[in-house]
Amino acid sequence: MKAVVLASGGLDSSVAAAVARRDGGLVHWLTISYGQRHAVEVARAKRLAVAMGAAGHLVLDLDLRRIGGSALTADLPVPKDRAPADRAAGIPVTYVPARNTIFLALALAYAETLGAEAIYIGANVVDYSGYPDCRPEFLRAFEEAARLGTRAGAAGARIEVRAPLLRLAKAEIIALGASLGVPFELTHSCYEPTADGAACGRCDSCLIRLEGFRGAGLTDPVRYVATAAGG
Amino acid sequence: MKAVVLASGGLDSSVAAAVARRDGGLVHWLTISYGQRHAVEVARAKRLAVAMGAAGHLVLDLDLRRIGGSALTADLPVPKDRAPADRAAGIPVTYVPARNTIFLALALAYAETLGAEAIYIGANVVDYSGYPDCRPEFLRAFEEAARLGTRAGAAGARIEVRAPLLRLAKAEIIALGASLGVPFELTHSCYEPTADGAACGRCDSCLIRLEGFRGAGLTDPVRYVATAAGG
Repeated sequence: MKAVVLASGGLDSSVAAAVARRDGGLVHWLTISYGQRHAVEVARAKRLAVAMGAAGHLVLDLDLRRIGGSALTADLPVPKDRAPADRAAGIPVTYVPARNTIFLALALAYAETLGAEAIYIGANVVDYSGYPDCRPEFLRAFEEAARLGTRAGAAGARIEVRAPLLRLAKAEIIALGASLGVPFELTHSCYEPTADGAACGRCDSCLIRLEGFRGAGLTDPVRYVATAAGG
Repeated sequence: MKAVVLASGGLDSSVAAAVARRDGGLVHWLTISYGQRHAVEVARAKRLAVAMGAAGHLVLDLDLRRIGGSALTADLPVPKDRAPADRAAGIPVTYVPARNTIFLALALAYAETLGAEAIYIGANVVDYSGYPDCRPEFLRAFEEAARLGTRAGAAGARIEVRAPLLRLAKAEIIALGASLGVPFELTHSCYEPTADGAACGRCDSCLIRLEGFRGAGLTDPVRYVATAAGG
Protein backbone atom coordinates (compact mmCIF):
# COMPACT_ATOMS: atom_id res chain seq x y z
CA MET A 1 0.00 0.00 0.00
CA LYS A 2 1.39 3.37 -1.05
CA ALA A 3 0.49 6.42 0.97
CA VAL A 4 1.27 10.12 0.94
CA VAL A 5 1.67 11.91 4.26
CA LEU A 6 1.47 15.67 4.63
CA ALA A 7 4.49 16.11 6.84
CA SER A 8 5.27 19.56 8.20
CA GLY A 9 8.08 18.64 10.54
CA GLY A 10 5.68 19.17 13.42
CA LEU A 11 4.67 16.68 16.07
CA ASP A 12 1.21 15.70 14.83
CA SER A 13 2.15 15.06 11.22
CA SER A 14 5.15 13.00 12.33
CA VAL A 15 2.87 10.81 14.42
CA ALA A 16 0.50 10.54 11.44
CA ALA A 17 3.47 9.39 9.32
CA ALA A 18 4.31 6.75 11.93
CA VAL A 19 0.70 5.53 11.85
CA ALA A 20 0.83 5.31 8.04
CA ARG A 21 3.90 3.14 8.32
CA ARG A 22 2.30 1.00 11.02
CA ASP A 23 -0.68 0.55 8.66
CA GLY A 24 1.70 -1.11 6.21
CA GLY A 25 2.30 1.82 3.93
CA LEU A 26 5.19 2.71 1.70
CA VAL A 27 5.05 6.26 2.95
CA HIS A 28 5.88 9.14 0.62
CA TRP A 29 6.37 12.37 2.55
CA LEU A 30 5.17 15.67 1.15
CA THR A 31 6.31 18.90 2.76
CA ILE A 32 5.18 22.33 1.61
CA SER A 33 7.65 25.13 2.17
CA TYR A 34 5.12 27.95 2.16
CA GLY A 35 7.12 30.84 3.56
CA GLN A 36 5.99 30.12 7.11
CA ARG A 37 7.72 32.03 9.90
CA HIS A 38 8.75 28.77 11.45
CA ALA A 39 10.71 27.65 8.39
CA VAL A 40 12.90 25.52 10.66
CA GLU A 41 10.02 23.01 10.32
CA VAL A 42 11.06 22.23 6.76
CA ALA A 43 14.62 21.38 7.81
CA ARG A 44 13.22 19.17 10.54
CA ALA A 45 10.86 17.44 8.12
CA LYS A 46 13.85 16.43 6.00
CA ARG A 47 15.64 14.91 8.99
CA LEU A 48 12.45 13.20 10.18
CA ALA A 49 11.79 11.66 6.75
CA VAL A 50 15.21 10.03 6.81
CA ALA A 51 14.94 8.96 10.45
CA MET A 52 11.47 7.49 9.93
CA GLY A 53 12.19 5.54 6.74
CA ALA A 54 10.21 7.53 4.19
CA ALA A 55 9.93 5.85 0.78
CA GLY A 56 10.42 9.32 -0.71
CA HIS A 57 10.27 12.94 0.29
CA LEU A 58 9.05 15.74 -1.94
CA VAL A 59 9.53 19.30 -0.67
CA LEU A 60 7.48 21.75 -2.73
CA ASP A 61 7.93 25.50 -2.65
CA LEU A 62 4.75 27.56 -2.60
CA ASP A 63 5.08 31.06 -1.20
CA LEU A 64 1.82 31.73 0.60
CA ARG A 65 3.24 35.06 1.87
CA ARG A 66 2.20 36.32 -1.56
CA ILE A 67 -1.40 35.73 -0.41
CA GLY A 68 -0.90 36.59 3.29
CA GLY A 69 -3.85 36.84 5.64
CA SER A 70 -2.25 35.00 8.57
CA ALA A 71 0.13 35.68 11.43
CA LEU A 72 2.18 32.77 10.08
CA THR A 73 2.61 34.26 6.61
CA ALA A 74 2.17 38.01 7.08
CA ASP A 75 3.49 40.59 9.48
CA LEU A 76 0.96 40.10 12.29
CA PRO A 77 1.83 39.31 15.93
CA VAL A 78 1.61 35.70 17.14
CA PRO A 79 -0.53 35.50 20.34
CA LYS A 80 1.33 34.47 23.49
CA ASP A 81 0.52 33.09 26.96
CA ARG A 82 -3.14 32.52 26.22
CA ALA A 83 -5.19 30.43 28.65
CA PRO A 84 -6.92 27.31 27.25
CA ALA A 85 -10.34 29.05 27.26
CA ASP A 86 -8.96 31.94 25.20
CA ARG A 87 -7.22 29.58 22.81
CA ALA A 88 -10.51 27.75 22.28
CA ALA A 89 -12.45 30.96 21.49
CA GLY A 90 -12.73 31.42 17.75
CA ILE A 91 -10.28 31.06 14.92
CA PRO A 92 -6.89 32.59 15.78
CA VAL A 93 -4.77 34.87 13.59
CA THR A 94 -2.43 31.95 12.97
CA TYR A 95 -5.12 30.46 10.71
CA VAL A 96 -3.69 30.41 7.17
CA PRO A 97 -6.48 30.90 4.61
CA ALA A 98 -7.42 27.56 3.03
CA ARG A 99 -4.08 26.00 3.98
CA ASN A 100 -5.31 22.46 4.40
CA THR A 101 -7.38 22.71 1.22
CA ILE A 102 -4.21 23.72 -0.65
CA PHE A 103 -2.04 21.09 1.03
CA LEU A 104 -4.57 18.30 0.50
CA ALA A 105 -4.91 19.30 -3.16
CA LEU A 106 -1.14 19.00 -3.61
CA ALA A 107 -1.13 15.68 -1.75
CA LEU A 108 -3.93 14.53 -4.02
CA ALA A 109 -1.89 15.30 -7.13
CA TYR A 110 1.11 13.48 -5.67
CA ALA A 111 -1.02 10.50 -4.60
CA GLU A 112 -2.63 10.25 -8.01
CA THR A 113 0.73 10.37 -9.77
CA LEU A 114 2.21 7.73 -7.45
CA GLY A 115 -0.88 5.52 -7.52
CA ALA A 116 -1.22 5.88 -3.75
CA GLU A 117 -4.46 4.88 -2.10
CA ALA A 118 -4.40 7.17 0.90
CA ILE A 119 -3.36 10.60 2.14
CA TYR A 120 -2.50 10.85 5.82
CA ILE A 121 -2.89 14.18 7.57
CA GLY A 122 -2.27 15.06 11.21
CA ALA A 123 -5.50 17.09 11.54
CA ASN A 124 -7.03 17.13 14.99
CA VAL A 125 -10.28 18.55 16.36
CA VAL A 126 -9.59 18.30 20.09
CA ASP A 127 -6.65 20.63 20.66
CA TYR A 128 -6.83 22.09 17.20
CA SER A 129 -6.77 25.83 17.92
CA GLY A 130 -10.08 26.36 16.13
CA TYR A 131 -8.95 25.82 12.54
CA PRO A 132 -12.00 25.10 10.35
CA ASP A 133 -9.95 23.03 7.91
CA CYS A 134 -9.20 20.44 10.58
CA ARG A 135 -12.85 19.48 11.01
CA PRO A 136 -14.01 16.00 9.96
CA GLU A 137 -16.83 17.41 7.83
CA PHE A 138 -14.27 19.39 5.84
CA LEU A 139 -12.07 16.34 5.34
CA ARG A 140 -15.03 14.27 4.08
CA ALA A 141 -16.09 17.05 1.71
CA PHE A 142 -12.57 17.30 0.35
CA GLU A 143 -12.43 13.54 -0.15
CA GLU A 144 -15.63 13.74 -2.21
CA ALA A 145 -14.22 16.58 -4.33
CA ALA A 146 -11.07 14.49 -4.81
CA ARG A 147 -13.11 11.51 -5.97
CA LEU A 148 -14.92 13.63 -8.56
CA GLY A 149 -11.98 15.74 -9.70
CA THR A 150 -9.29 13.16 -10.51
CA ARG A 151 -8.63 10.62 -13.20
CA ALA A 152 -8.24 8.02 -10.45
CA GLY A 153 -11.63 8.87 -9.00
CA ALA A 154 -13.32 8.91 -12.40
CA ALA A 155 -11.94 5.39 -12.95
CA GLY A 156 -13.52 4.18 -9.70
CA ALA A 157 -10.37 4.19 -7.58
CA ARG A 158 -10.54 5.97 -4.28
CA ILE A 159 -7.90 8.10 -2.62
CA GLU A 160 -8.83 8.20 1.05
CA VAL A 161 -8.05 11.10 3.34
CA ARG A 162 -7.02 9.54 6.65
CA ALA A 163 -6.74 11.65 9.79
CA PRO A 164 -5.74 9.09 12.43
CA LEU A 165 -5.29 11.73 15.14
CA LEU A 166 -8.61 13.46 14.50
CA ARG A 167 -10.26 12.75 17.84
CA LEU A 168 -7.21 12.23 20.05
CA ALA A 169 -6.18 14.65 22.78
CA LYS A 170 -2.62 15.95 22.54
CA ALA A 171 -1.48 13.67 25.38
CA GLU A 172 -2.91 10.68 23.48
CA ILE A 173 -1.14 11.72 20.28
CA ILE A 174 2.13 11.95 22.16
CA ALA A 175 1.60 8.57 23.83
CA LEU A 176 0.80 7.04 20.43
CA GLY A 177 3.89 8.62 18.88
CA ALA A 178 6.06 7.37 21.73
CA SER A 179 4.73 3.83 21.25
CA LEU A 180 5.62 4.02 17.54
CA GLY A 181 9.10 5.39 18.18
CA VAL A 182 8.64 8.89 16.74
CA PRO A 183 11.86 10.87 17.31
CA PHE A 184 10.16 13.78 19.09
CA GLU A 185 13.47 15.56 19.53
CA LEU A 186 13.42 16.29 15.77
CA THR A 187 9.86 17.63 15.68
CA HIS A 188 9.10 21.33 15.81
CA SER A 189 5.88 22.98 16.95
CA CYS A 190 6.66 26.60 17.89
CA TYR A 191 5.08 29.38 15.82
CA GLU A 192 7.85 31.85 16.68
CA PRO A 193 11.15 30.10 17.42
CA THR A 194 14.35 31.97 18.19
CA ALA A 195 16.98 32.38 15.49
CA ASP A 196 18.82 29.31 16.77
CA GLY A 197 15.68 27.16 16.70
CA ALA A 198 14.63 27.16 20.37
CA ALA A 199 10.86 27.04 20.97
CA CYS A 200 9.28 30.10 22.61
CA GLY A 201 7.16 28.08 25.05
CA ARG A 202 4.42 30.74 24.96
CA CYS A 203 2.56 30.57 21.65
CA ASP A 204 -0.61 28.46 21.42
CA SER A 205 1.28 25.67 19.71
CA CYS A 206 3.99 25.47 22.42
CA LEU A 207 1.43 25.66 25.22
CA ILE A 208 -0.64 22.84 23.75
CA ARG A 209 2.47 20.73 23.18
CA LEU A 210 3.78 21.25 26.71
CA GLU A 211 0.41 20.41 28.25
CA GLY A 212 0.33 17.29 26.09
CA PHE A 213 3.70 16.03 27.25
CA ARG A 214 2.72 16.68 30.86
CA GLY A 215 -0.55 14.83 30.29
CA ALA A 216 1.26 11.87 28.77
CA GLY A 217 3.70 11.78 31.70
CA LEU A 218 6.64 12.37 29.37
CA THR A 219 9.32 15.03 29.05
CA ASP A 220 9.44 17.06 25.86
CA PRO A 221 12.97 16.64 24.47
CA VAL A 222 12.98 19.84 22.37
CA ARG A 223 14.82 22.93 23.54
CA TYR A 224 12.85 25.89 24.88
CA VAL A 225 14.09 29.40 25.61
CA ALA A 226 15.24 29.66 29.24
CA THR A 227 12.29 31.66 30.54
CA ALA A 228 9.61 29.38 29.15
CA ALA A 229 7.26 27.14 31.09
CA GLY A 230 8.89 24.04 29.70
CA GLY A 231 12.45 25.35 30.00
CA MET B 1 -18.39 42.84 -5.53
CA LYS B 2 -14.86 41.46 -5.39
CA ALA B 3 -14.04 38.38 -7.40
CA VAL B 4 -11.01 36.22 -8.09
CA VAL B 5 -10.57 34.78 -11.56
CA LEU B 6 -8.28 31.86 -12.32
CA ALA B 7 -6.66 33.31 -15.41
CA SER B 8 -4.24 31.15 -17.35
CA GLY B 9 -3.72 33.41 -20.33
CA GLY B 10 -5.87 31.03 -22.34
CA LEU B 11 -9.05 31.81 -24.21
CA ASP B 12 -11.63 30.36 -21.84
CA SER B 13 -10.32 31.93 -18.66
CA SER B 14 -10.05 35.30 -20.38
CA VAL B 15 -13.70 35.10 -21.37
CA ALA B 16 -14.52 34.08 -17.78
CA ALA B 17 -12.67 37.18 -16.57
CA ALA B 18 -14.70 39.33 -18.94
CA VAL B 19 -17.92 37.79 -17.58
CA ALA B 20 -16.78 38.52 -14.00
CA ARG B 21 -16.28 42.14 -14.96
CA ARG B 22 -19.64 42.27 -16.74
CA ASP B 23 -21.19 40.89 -13.53
CA GLY B 24 -19.96 44.01 -11.77
CA GLY B 25 -16.87 42.58 -10.16
CA LEU B 26 -13.63 44.18 -9.10
CA VAL B 27 -11.71 41.33 -10.67
CA HIS B 28 -8.48 40.09 -9.11
CA TRP B 29 -6.59 37.84 -11.49
CA LEU B 30 -4.71 34.79 -10.20
CA THR B 31 -2.28 33.01 -12.50
CA ILE B 32 -0.35 29.92 -11.49
CA SER B 33 3.01 29.49 -13.14
CA TYR B 34 3.23 25.73 -12.70
CA GLY B 35 6.05 24.80 -15.00
CA GLN B 36 3.72 24.12 -17.90
CA ARG B 37 5.27 23.54 -21.31
CA HIS B 38 3.28 26.39 -22.67
CA ALA B 39 4.81 28.94 -20.28
CA VAL B 40 4.11 31.64 -22.83
CA GLU B 41 0.61 31.56 -21.29
CA VAL B 42 1.88 33.30 -18.17
CA ALA B 43 3.35 36.19 -20.17
CA ARG B 44 0.06 36.49 -22.02
CA ALA B 45 -1.92 36.47 -18.77
CA LYS B 46 0.07 39.49 -17.61
CA ARG B 47 -0.71 41.41 -20.77
CA LEU B 48 -4.36 40.36 -20.68
CA ALA B 49 -4.77 41.46 -17.05
CA VAL B 50 -3.62 44.96 -17.97
CA ALA B 51 -5.66 45.08 -21.18
CA MET B 52 -8.80 43.87 -19.42
CA GLY B 53 -8.64 46.20 -16.40
CA ALA B 54 -7.82 43.74 -13.62
CA ALA B 55 -8.07 45.19 -10.10
CA GLY B 56 -4.92 43.20 -9.30
CA HIS B 57 -2.88 40.34 -10.66
CA LEU B 58 -1.10 37.77 -8.54
CA VAL B 59 1.22 35.34 -10.32
CA LEU B 60 2.14 32.44 -8.06
CA ASP B 61 4.96 30.00 -8.75
CA LEU B 62 4.21 26.35 -8.06
CA ASP B 63 6.36 23.88 -9.93
CA LEU B 64 4.08 20.94 -10.69
CA ARG B 65 6.87 19.33 -12.74
CA ARG B 66 8.10 18.14 -9.36
CA ILE B 67 4.96 15.99 -9.22
CA GLY B 68 4.71 15.22 -12.95
CA GLY B 69 2.16 12.75 -14.29
CA SER B 70 1.07 14.80 -17.31
CA ALA B 71 2.21 15.56 -20.83
CA LEU B 72 2.04 19.22 -19.83
CA THR B 73 4.42 18.87 -16.89
CA ALA B 74 6.51 15.79 -17.66
CA ASP B 75 8.39 14.48 -20.67
CA LEU B 76 5.48 12.78 -22.43
CA PRO B 77 4.38 13.49 -26.02
CA VAL B 78 1.42 15.81 -26.65
CA PRO B 79 -1.16 14.12 -28.94
CA LYS B 80 -1.59 15.73 -32.37
CA ASP B 81 -4.14 15.72 -35.19
CA ARG B 82 -6.78 13.76 -33.29
CA ALA B 83 -10.31 13.59 -34.67
CA PRO B 84 -13.14 14.89 -32.42
CA ALA B 85 -14.24 11.32 -31.57
CA ASP B 86 -10.72 10.40 -30.43
CA ARG B 87 -10.40 13.58 -28.42
CA ALA B 88 -13.67 12.76 -26.66
CA ALA B 89 -12.57 9.23 -25.70
CA GLY B 90 -11.28 9.19 -22.16
CA ILE B 91 -8.97 11.47 -20.25
CA PRO B 92 -5.95 12.53 -22.33
CA VAL B 93 -2.30 12.56 -21.21
CA THR B 94 -2.50 16.34 -21.00
CA TYR B 95 -4.60 15.90 -17.84
CA VAL B 96 -2.55 17.35 -14.96
CA PRO B 97 -3.29 15.45 -11.74
CA ALA B 98 -5.66 17.43 -9.54
CA ARG B 99 -4.80 20.69 -11.29
CA ASN B 100 -8.14 22.39 -10.84
CA THR B 101 -8.35 21.20 -7.23
CA ILE B 102 -4.98 22.85 -6.60
CA PHE B 103 -5.82 26.01 -8.52
CA LEU B 104 -9.24 26.39 -6.87
CA ALA B 105 -7.64 25.90 -3.45
CA LEU B 106 -5.19 28.71 -4.16
CA ALA B 107 -8.00 30.90 -5.51
CA LEU B 108 -9.95 30.14 -2.35
CA ALA B 109 -7.09 31.34 -0.15
CA TYR B 110 -6.77 34.50 -2.23
CA ALA B 111 -10.54 35.10 -2.21
CA GLU B 112 -10.72 34.62 1.55
CA THR B 113 -7.85 37.03 2.14
CA LEU B 114 -9.36 39.66 -0.18
CA GLY B 115 -12.90 39.20 1.13
CA ALA B 116 -14.07 38.21 -2.36
CA GLU B 117 -17.42 36.54 -2.76
CA ALA B 118 -16.78 34.54 -5.90
CA ILE B 119 -14.15 32.60 -7.82
CA TYR B 120 -14.56 32.53 -11.60
CA ILE B 121 -13.11 29.62 -13.53
CA GLY B 122 -13.24 28.92 -17.26
CA ALA B 123 -14.13 25.24 -16.81
CA ASN B 124 -16.21 23.75 -19.57
CA VAL B 125 -17.85 20.36 -20.02
CA VAL B 126 -18.74 20.52 -23.69
CA ASP B 127 -15.38 20.71 -25.46
CA TYR B 128 -13.42 20.01 -22.35
CA SER B 129 -11.07 17.25 -23.52
CA GLY B 130 -12.39 14.87 -20.86
CA TYR B 131 -10.87 16.45 -17.77
CA PRO B 132 -12.71 15.20 -14.67
CA ASP B 133 -11.96 18.39 -12.75
CA CYS B 134 -14.04 20.45 -15.18
CA ARG B 135 -17.26 18.62 -14.31
CA PRO B 136 -20.06 20.50 -12.52
CA GLU B 137 -20.31 17.84 -9.82
CA PHE B 138 -16.65 18.37 -9.00
CA LEU B 139 -17.09 22.14 -8.81
CA ARG B 140 -20.06 21.80 -6.45
CA ALA B 141 -18.16 19.35 -4.25
CA PHE B 142 -15.20 21.73 -4.10
CA GLU B 143 -17.50 24.62 -3.19
CA GLU B 144 -18.85 22.58 -0.29
CA ALA B 145 -15.33 21.74 0.91
CA ALA B 146 -14.49 25.44 0.64
CA ARG B 147 -17.49 26.37 2.75
CA LEU B 148 -16.46 23.95 5.48
CA GLY B 149 -12.72 24.54 5.38
CA THR B 150 -12.42 28.33 5.63
CA ARG B 151 -12.87 30.99 8.27
CA ALA B 152 -15.22 32.78 5.89
CA GLY B 153 -17.35 29.67 5.48
CA ALA B 154 -17.38 28.95 9.21
CA ALA B 155 -18.67 32.51 9.73
CA GLY B 156 -21.56 31.90 7.32
CA ALA B 157 -20.10 33.74 4.34
CA ARG B 158 -20.06 31.94 1.05
CA ILE B 159 -17.38 31.94 -1.61
CA GLU B 160 -19.08 30.78 -4.77
CA VAL B 161 -17.32 28.90 -7.55
CA ARG B 162 -18.72 30.31 -10.78
CA ALA B 163 -18.08 28.59 -14.08
CA PRO B 164 -19.97 30.78 -16.56
CA LEU B 165 -18.74 28.81 -19.58
CA LEU B 166 -19.59 25.40 -18.17
CA ARG B 167 -22.22 24.39 -20.70
CA LEU B 168 -21.22 26.53 -23.66
CA ALA B 169 -19.77 25.10 -26.87
CA LYS B 170 -16.44 26.60 -27.92
CA ALA B 171 -18.12 28.65 -30.65
CA GLU B 172 -20.49 30.12 -28.06
CA ILE B 173 -17.60 30.96 -25.72
CA ILE B 174 -15.85 32.77 -28.55
CA ALA B 175 -19.02 34.65 -29.53
CA LEU B 176 -19.52 35.66 -25.88
CA GLY B 177 -15.91 36.80 -25.58
CA ALA B 178 -16.19 38.79 -28.80
CA SER B 179 -19.32 40.53 -27.48
CA LEU B 180 -17.43 41.46 -24.30
CA GLY B 181 -14.38 42.74 -26.16
CA VAL B 182 -11.89 40.08 -25.11
CA PRO B 183 -8.58 40.74 -26.92
CA PHE B 184 -8.30 37.25 -28.41
CA GLU B 185 -5.02 38.14 -30.09
CA LEU B 186 -3.39 38.05 -26.64
CA THR B 187 -4.84 34.70 -25.61
CA HIS B 188 -2.90 31.48 -25.94
CA SER B 189 -4.28 27.96 -26.20
CA CYS B 190 -1.61 25.73 -27.78
CA TYR B 191 -0.13 22.91 -25.69
CA GLU B 192 3.10 22.89 -27.68
CA PRO B 193 3.89 26.28 -29.18
CA THR B 194 7.06 26.99 -31.15
CA ALA B 195 9.94 28.80 -29.49
CA ASP B 196 8.70 32.13 -30.88
CA GLY B 197 5.16 31.56 -29.56
CA ALA B 198 3.31 30.40 -32.69
CA ALA B 199 0.53 27.86 -32.05
CA CYS B 200 1.02 24.36 -33.47
CA GLY B 201 -2.51 24.08 -34.88
CA ARG B 202 -2.51 20.32 -34.26
CA CYS B 203 -2.84 19.61 -30.53
CA ASP B 204 -6.30 19.03 -29.05
CA SER B 205 -6.40 22.55 -27.70
CA CYS B 206 -5.57 24.17 -31.05
CA LEU B 207 -8.02 21.94 -32.92
CA ILE B 208 -10.86 22.79 -30.54
CA ARG B 209 -10.03 26.50 -30.72
CA LEU B 210 -9.90 26.55 -34.51
CA GLU B 211 -13.19 24.68 -34.79
CA GLY B 212 -14.68 27.18 -32.34
CA PHE B 213 -13.66 30.21 -34.34
CA ARG B 214 -15.00 28.62 -37.51
CA GLY B 215 -18.26 27.82 -35.71
CA ALA B 216 -18.56 31.40 -34.48
CA GLY B 217 -17.92 32.72 -37.98
CA LEU B 218 -14.82 34.57 -36.80
CA THR B 219 -11.14 34.50 -37.68
CA ASP B 220 -8.69 33.52 -34.97
CA PRO B 221 -6.18 36.38 -34.71
CA VAL B 222 -3.36 34.35 -33.14
CA ARG B 223 -0.41 33.19 -35.20
CA TYR B 224 -0.14 29.53 -36.23
CA VAL B 225 2.83 27.74 -37.75
CA ALA B 226 2.63 27.88 -41.53
CA THR B 227 1.61 24.26 -42.11
CA ALA B 228 -1.28 24.26 -39.66
CA ALA B 229 -4.97 24.07 -40.46
CA GLY B 230 -5.55 27.58 -39.23
CA GLY B 231 -2.38 29.03 -40.79
